[in-house]
Formats: sequence, C-alpha cells, structure tokens
Amino acid sequence: MSREASHESTPQFALGVDYGTNSVRALVVDTATGEEIATAVWEYAHGDHGVVLDPKDPNLARQHPADYLEGFVRSAAAAVRAAASHRGFRPDRIVGIGVDTTGSTPIPVDADGVALALHKQFAREPAAMAWLWKDHTSHAEAAEITDKARAAGLPYLAKCGGTYSSEWFWSKALRCERANPAVASAAAAWVELCDYVPGVLTGNSDPSSMRRSICAAGHKAMYHPSWGGLPSAEFLDSLSPGFSRIRYETMAVPSSHTAGHLTAEHATRVGLPAGIPVAVGAFDAHMGAVGSGAAPGALVKIMGTSTCDCMVAPIDGGVPDIPGVCGIVPESILPGMLGIEAGQSAVGDIFNWFVSRIAPSGFGTGPDVHTALTREAAKLKPGESGLVALDWHNGNRTVLVDPLLTGLLVGQTLHTVPPEIYRALIEATAFGALKIIDRISEFGVPIDRVINCGGIAEKSPLVMQIYADVCNRPMFVSRSGQTCALGAAIFGAVVGGAHDDVPAAQRAMTAVRPESYKPDPAAAAVYHRLYAIYTALHDAFAASGPAAPLHHVMKELIQIRRQARGLT
Amino acid sequence: MSREASHESTPQFALGVDYGTNSVRALVVDTATGEEIATAVWEYAHGDHGVVLDPKDPNLARQHPADYLEGFVRSAAAAVRAAASHRGFRPDRIVGIGVDTTGSTPIPVDADGVALALHKQFAREPAAMAWLWKDHTSHAEAAEITDKARAAGLPYLAKCGGTYSSEWFWSKALRCERANPAVASAAAAWVELCDYVPGVLTGNSDPSSMRRSICAAGHKAMYHPSWGGLPSAEFLDSLSPGFSRIRYETMAVPSSHTAGHLTAEHATRVGLPAGIPVAVGAFDAHMGAVGSGAAPGALVKIMGTSTCDCMVAPIDGGVPDIPGVCGIVPESILPGMLGIEAGQSAVGDIFNWFVSRIAPSGFGTGPDVHTALTREAAKLKPGESGLVALDWHNGNRTVLVDPLLTGLLVGQTLHTVPPEIYRALIEATAFGALKIIDRISEFGVPIDRVINCGGIAEKSPLVMQIYADVCNRPMFVSRSGQTCALGAAIFGAVVGGAHDDVPAAQRAMTAVRPESYKPDPAAAAVYHRLYAIYTALHDAFAASGPAAPLHHVMKELIQIRRQARGLT
Repeated sequence: MSREASHESTPQFALGVDYGTNSVRALVVDTATGEEIATAVWEYAHGDHGVVLDPKDPNLARQHPADYLEGFVRSAAAAVRAAASHRGFRPDRIVGIGVDTTGSTPIPVDADGVALALHKQFAREPAAMAWLWKDHTSHAEAAEITDKARAAGLPYLAKCGGTYSSEWFWSKALRCERANPAVASAAAAWVELCDYVPGVLTGNSDPSSMRRSICAAGHKAMYHPSWGGLPSAEFLDSLSPGFSRIRYETMAVPSSHTAGHLTAEHATRVGLPAGIPVAVGAFDAHMGAVGSGAAPGALVKIMGTSTCDCMVAPIDGGVPDIPGVCGIVPESILPGMLGIEAGQSAVGDIFNWFVSRIAPSGFGTGPDVHTALTREAAKLKPGESGLVALDWHNGNRTVLVDPLLTGLLVGQTLHTVPPEIYRALIEATAFGALKIIDRISEFGVPIDRVINCGGIAEKSPLVMQIYADVCNRPMFVSRSGQTCALGAAIFGAVVGGAHDDVPAAQRAMTAVRPESYKPDPAAAAVYHRLYAIYTALHDAFAASGPAAPLHHVMKELIQIRRQARGLT
Repeated sequence: MSREASHESTPQFALGVDYGTNSVRALVVDTATGEEIATAVWEYAHGDHGVVLDPKDPNLARQHPADYLEGFVRSAAAAVRAAASHRGFRPDRIVGIGVDTTGSTPIPVDADGVALALHKQFAREPAAMAWLWKDHTSHAEAAEITDKARAAGLPYLAKCGGTYSSEWFWSKALRCERANPAVASAAAAWVELCDYVPGVLTGNSDPSSMRRSICAAGHKAMYHPSWGGLPSAEFLDSLSPGFSRIRYETMAVPSSHTAGHLTAEHATRVGLPAGIPVAVGAFDAHMGAVGSGAAPGALVKIMGTSTCDCMVAPIDGGVPDIPGVCGIVPESILPGMLGIEAGQSAVGDIFNWFVSRIAPSGFGTGPDVHTALTREAAKLKPGESGLVALDWHNGNRTVLVDPLLTGLLVGQTLHTVPPEIYRALIEATAFGALKIIDRISEFGVPIDRVINCGGIAEKSPLVMQIYADVCNRPMFVSRSGQTCALGAAIFGAVVGGAHDDVPAAQRAMTAVRPESYKPDPAAAAVYHRLYAIYTALHDAFAASGPAAPLHHVMKELIQIRRQARGLT
C-alpha cells in the first residue's frame, strides 16, 4: 500500500478516451479514488450524427476517419482544460492514457497506416471509410466465411459462437474486396479503430509492426493463440485469391500493454507533455466492463444503443465453447482471464426508433418523449398490454448470431396505445437479455450478479425494474456514468504505473451504486409466462429445426392481459 | 316498361335510412334514375362517437337506444327539408321507406318492445343498451354455443361457417343472462336493431308479432327454414335454463316485405304524410350490396371501419356450406337468391387506429394524416418496406371466425418509418380480402367481378390499387357514395310499388363508376410472394393443426425488400 499512500501527497490522474457511435468522450480520473474530475464530449462532424448512411441500403453504416483525429484533439484538450480548476491536477500528473472504441470497426489503410479516406481521391468513398460496427452490408460474406470454415473443418468459429458475423473484421474486408475493388486494392492493411487511434497518437501506425488489441482480434478477427493467431493464409486466400495479403503476423496483446508514447505533436495540441504512455486499445464494452467492476461471477451489461454483455472466468477454469456466444477470448477483458462477450444488436436503438421514427404524437418532443412514454408505460402492469415483441430490429447478436432477423410485434388491438408498445419493446429487450443469461449459465459459467452500466442503466428505473422482474434477479448499477472511458482510464493508470495490475486499479477506481433494483415476485410470475411466449416466437422465427406451434400465442396473451386487468 | 314511362310525368322517391356505427344517414332517391336528391346525417349523442365503451374492457361496445329514435327524426326530417328544393319533389311523392342498420346489434326490450335502456332504472346500464355488432364481451358464450351445437350434432352452425361468433345475437343474449341477470330477467325479448327501427316507426313493435328480418335472423341468430326457424327451445334451454323464453316463433322475411306503415306521430315529426309503407329492415352491408348492384357472380365489398363481403347465388344452385364463411342464408340479400356473407372484422378501423392511436407525428393532424401517409405510402414499391402484417386487430371474421385473434407486424428494422407500416396495414387487409375470395371460389361459387363501395373505396385510390394488385383482378367501385342508404331506398321503392321487384329497381337505380382499378402484373408478382408469407403467418397463428415453419419469413421479406430496392 506504499504506492497508494504516496498518492495522498502527489495525486495522479489517467486520461480515458472513449470513441462511441455518435461522439468521442475524454475523461480525467483520479487514479487513487476513481473520482472523475473532468470530462468533455465532441460530436462527430460527418454523416447523420457521426454515421455515414446510404438511403438505398439500410445495412450500410460508415464513419469518416477524419472525425477520429479531430475527436481526440477536441475532447482531450477540453477535458484537460476543464481539469485545470481541480485541486491537485496538473497536466504532467496524467500518468497514462487509455483508449476504447466501437468495434468491430475496421478501417482500410495504406502502407503507412494512413486511413484511405484521408487521401483526397477516397475522401467521399464510403468503402474507404471506417466500417462501423453496425454495418451489415457483408452478410453474404459472413455466411460464406462461416460455411467455408465449417466445410474445411477449421476451428476458427469455435470461440465466436459457431457463426461468423457480418459485423466483424473479415466479413467487412471481404465485402470490400468483392464490392469495391478499387478501395480493396489500395488498402495495404485493415486496422481496427481501437488499434488505429493509439497507433496514430504514438506514431506507431505502421500496420506491419503496430500493437494490435487481443480484444479486437480475438473477438472479431478469429485470432486465437491455439491456432497461431489469425486464420491461415490458405483459408483467407480460399475466400478470395490474394486476400491473405492483409493478414498480420504480430501478436495481439491486452490493454495492460503499452502501444507507445504520446507524440509531441499530439501532446501539444491537447495541452499535455509528450511521452505519456498510451495503452493498447480495446472495444468500448470490454473497457466498460472493467470500469464497472468485471470479476469472476459478475455479468456486466453495457446498455446503450446496443448492449454488450461481458464476463470473465479463470483461463484454466474449463469454460467450454458456448453456442451463439460471440466471443470467448483469453485476456480480452482482463489480463490473465478468459473474456466472454455476448450482446444484443439493438436496445436503446429500438426505443429511439419508436420515439424518433414512429414518433407517436401527444407525448411531447425530443427527449421528453422518452420521459412521457416511460411515465405512461410505468403505469401498466406486466401483461396488461397483451403485447409481446421480438427485439431483432437490428438482427440478433446473441444467441442467434444472425443480422438478417427483424422485429416483430404481436397482440395489437384497435385499443393498443404507444406506451403499451414502448413497454413491450423494453420487455422484448429484457427477454433477449434473459436468453443470454440462460445460455451462459446453462454452459456452466455461474452468474452471481448482474451489473449494469451505460445511459439506460443510469437513467431509466423502469427499464432496470423490468429487467429485474423479467430476469427474476437483482440488477446492480455501476457508480460511474461513463464506465467505458473509466475503463480506458484504468488501463491508462496501469500502463502509467499508478497501480500494479488491473484488479488493483478496479478496487481503487470502481464501485456499484448502494441501491439495486430487486425483482417483484408477482411481476416475475407474469413475465415467466410472457417469456415462454417470447421463446416460442424466438424459436419459430429463427430456428430451422422442427416448427413450434404458435396458435396458442394470441390466445394466451389475451388471457394474461385479462388477468392483469382483473377481468378473469 | 309502362311503369317507368309514367315516372316521367310524376316523379317518385324513396327514403333510405342507414344506421351506422357512429351516425344515422337519411337519403332521398329518385326511383326512376337512382339520383340521390337529398341526404342528411346525424351523429349519435351518446358515448364516444356513438359507442358506449368501458375503459377496463376493450371488448365492450354498446349504443344507447335513445339515439336510434332521435336519429330517425333528425336525419329524415333534415333530408326531407333538403329535398324540398329539388324540382319535382314533394313529401307525398315518397312512396316507401327502407331501413338498414349495423348488426348483429341486439337490444333487450320489454313485452311492448320498448328498449330496456329507455326505462329510467336502466338508462345508464350498458347491458340494457344495444349490444353493438363489434362488442366482443361474449366470446366465452360464443365458444360454448359452438361446442354444445357440435357436441349435440345439431346443424345450426352449418350456415355460419361452423363457428358461432361473439358478435352475434345468441352469444350476446346469453352473456347478458350470465353477467347481468337483472337486465336479462327484465328482458321479455331481444330484438335486432334492424327490426327494432321499422317496428317502432310503424307501431308494430310487439316482439311476439313484429316482422323480423331474414337477413338478421339467418346470418346471426341461426335461423333457417330447414330446421324450422330459430334453434330449438331444448337447445336454448341447454345453454341456460329458461333461455328459450326469448325464442320467437314468427317467420323471418326479406326486405321486399312490408313491416308496416309510418305512424302519424313519426310522420309528423319528419314532415311526411302518415301511412307510407316501411320495408322490413336488413343489415347495412346487405343493403349496401343491393345498392352496389349485387347479382350472381359479383362480389360486393362494403369497405368501411370493417368490411362485409356479399354475394348472391341461385337458391337451387347447389352452393355448399363453406367453412369459415359466416352466413349463407336464403333471401338475406335478394329475394329468391341465396345470400352469402363474409367479412373482415376491421379494415378502416385498423388504418384509423394507426392514425389516431399510434398517431405518428410529422404527418399533419386529423384527416390530413391519412392523406399524408397515403401520399408517402404510395411512393413505396410492393415489398420495399420489408414488412408484413396480420389484419386481426379486431379478430378475424372470415375465414377464421375467431374474435380472440390480434394484430401482428413482422419485418421492422431501425429504419422502418410510419408510411411503411401504414402501407403494410393496407396490404394486410388486402391479403385478408384475398383469403375470402379464395375461400368462396374454392367452394364452387365463381366470382366474375368485385364491386367495392363505402368510404375507403371512394376515397383511397391507393387502397383500391393495392387490392387490385394483391387480388390480381380489377376492382370496380360503386357509383353511389351511400350504397347502404341507397339499398334501403331500393327496398322502400319496391314496397312502395315503384318497381316490380328488386332486380328491376337495381337496374334503374344502381351503377358502377366507368373507370376501374386494374392490376399491375409486376406488383401482382411481388404480392404473390408476400401473400405466401401472409398465409404462413395466418396459418401458424390461427390454426391448431401441424405447425408451419416460419424461420424463412424474415429472410424472405429481406430478400423481397432488397429486390424491390434494386439491391440484389
């Protein structure tokens, strides 16, 4: 404890930088207490709230790499300026920087690691931009990768749920190879966003030698030590001749490693001294899990536009491959632990879709609509709406691993009102969450508690209570409101030497709120019945096995509705 | 033709009075030409747009009988006044009156035929009011009637699709017996609205001797000459001891019969001479079919909040019982012809639900919302939305005869917008319409042409074009905008002696618009695929037979969507 004691006299700080879907956030954290002393957010300049879309193809979602560099400078400089007023802060007391990003968000780059879209001829070419995590243009390629790996008897899919996703690295690079050959041939390599940013900040962006994140590689690029890193050149060339040219040979490492040191140029632009160590990057959800207190037995749910559900387990604890669980990767979350990643392709995005696309009138405008619908939805009893929905508006990541699934709503009558649908959509995401808990538990990874973080967990008691009732277990909420940036800062603290290891940093810098959401037995009993209906729909519309009967669905929903209303 | 020739010198008129769900309409028609010379509408005073609701029970829908008498006086008096300015009109040239109403809308009455809700002690008791056609509180009783008739091997269900409906006479009376014994025991009889109005107008309201409509009795009260009229007293008493007390013995007749003559009291109040013959009433849809030109080979669709699909066929033409077709009744539409009735429980009601309950913002307010959504929906290609819906928001009348079915929407993504849903709801009702056409055709009743009438047929070219494309056949539209009232006037003309029979009156007084909606082959091809998906959902959620596979549904909708957008 001598190290902590010394902090009392000389405070130390870490900078966490979190690249989200719509904006980038910088956070300055006290490494001894976890106190978040300053933060700043910059909204991306390009596209629709940072996302470049194609009105003809709802599957396309890109980002312009120019936003990433400007985003670091703008957010970090503002956070450092804001921190200046904090007692004990000085820029030279920032001991380390961590970076987390969305993913898989691969970027085609030239031989120097410069993103192709930063070259004039590709500046407006979506294929040359970053292929955002939620881009689904490559579903055919994902299916092809799955089929070929299976047919060849290769083990690559074992750690990602048995099905490769259109959201991931190789699907996107292969799609570009097929659909945009000019971009593909100009790309010397593809680099994940979480590797791209630390590479650029430290001047180590040469794609042949830069540090790559085990988190990104292991979950999304089929990287695993047991088969020597990335899939073999033979396999990649079988997908497309010459495709193996973008295979890298370097070893991917966890974020407790240093990617390099902040260059003088970037240091000057944000008001920091040069040479601060920058940790290897990782995906936002994994760093959010760390910032929420990820530890064996705890499932951390990062709840935002989509969710990521993260667990860790001892690397030698005999965790099997779990069908439909997208990533089981050594050290992807915590060094020395197996990282288990699951998730839902859309959660907050579904609520936002209802509020901003369907936009029922009579509930105010802007963010007020969520507030008003939440207030009315909270008045409903479980089952009272007679509705059940499937939460597949953006496909299903876990346990079905299928981007080509869509939403469903059943039970509407001429009396159905928007708060009932809003609540049904919340419930649908809760059922989806329970499917993930069930699947992980069934395969022998015990879940002792669920810690939630992210905007929805903080702001919506209704959502959290429904999750507690549907899952019939307490829901804890992380103390921090920016756990991803906090997780990044924790790795910054570790590479900066403020703590000996990540668990020590977590003990000092993370906590959950004292109050949790507790399940209500009566509500849980109704949701138990509704979950059976959700499961029947889930299996009927997704599974290719024997057809499940569904003729009971509408009848049972009406019966549950009548009981909820006290009519039967 | 001597009769028609004489009209040239002395014009004759008929008065049709149409009792709808929200209002009553009176129409004065020239019996020689069908010219509609004056009309007036009165909105019911009670309840929500004329419907008394129970916020706790979405199945309840009642009407106050006081609205019926006031509705006749207000609408007929106004129409007669408005007709006064027409050249050749005089009140004493109205030769006859016809009445049509919603149904089955039975009313509990005392021994004199006075509606119980007109007695002070029952004035606010919903059970003592008229049980509106769309009241679904008696679904348990409907199931019980079906089960008992089947178990006893009785033939009563053969003419109503094999399943008795909660919307019908006996279900409602039996529900009252169970749930409201005070009202039930005060009821000397139950009278259909279409019998109640002519009875009151002519002073022939004694329920033991009044004229009853074969249309109402045959379709909704299991009346059929082959088993001696209504179901036996034994059967009724097996449902509830003493229930047979409300069984009437009189023979039900078509509307070419006279119910009586307008009393002096009512004549004075509307500005007509006393003694004008009043035809036996019938249901609105059946009279609408007559006013649209119902004849063998023509399916008439009355398209409003719900639809009624009517056909006639020769009584000795060997038409079999058709499973799921609610009513096959001799003379219910045209004297001497078999009347075949099918229908959809909600059509316009579904569009109105989306506009007024879901109420997407950004599309104006009030009726403008329909206009704006229609304009945007019309820009979409078939299949482009990736959506398919089931049109069961108010249950399914034909071919499933099940009020306990509900709506369904599948295919939503985060990009789905209200015009896409609006169009999917229109398409769903078109698929439902095609199911009815298929069923009737499959059982050997040829359909040569489809004539549409009612507000939607007149006002929405988009709906009509989608129906033409989905059904892959032309859609004709009736010339008259008020075919139900016109049909009533036709029967008024017949009982008043202006025409020898109903077909002669139809030839003189009805027509279709010169332009029809013609199917587009490319659209029809896409809808052929979407209809297969609709059918898969239809069968999976309704039928209790072997489960149909559904895992292809979302995939195929995405494929159709991509093809519609030119992406594949």
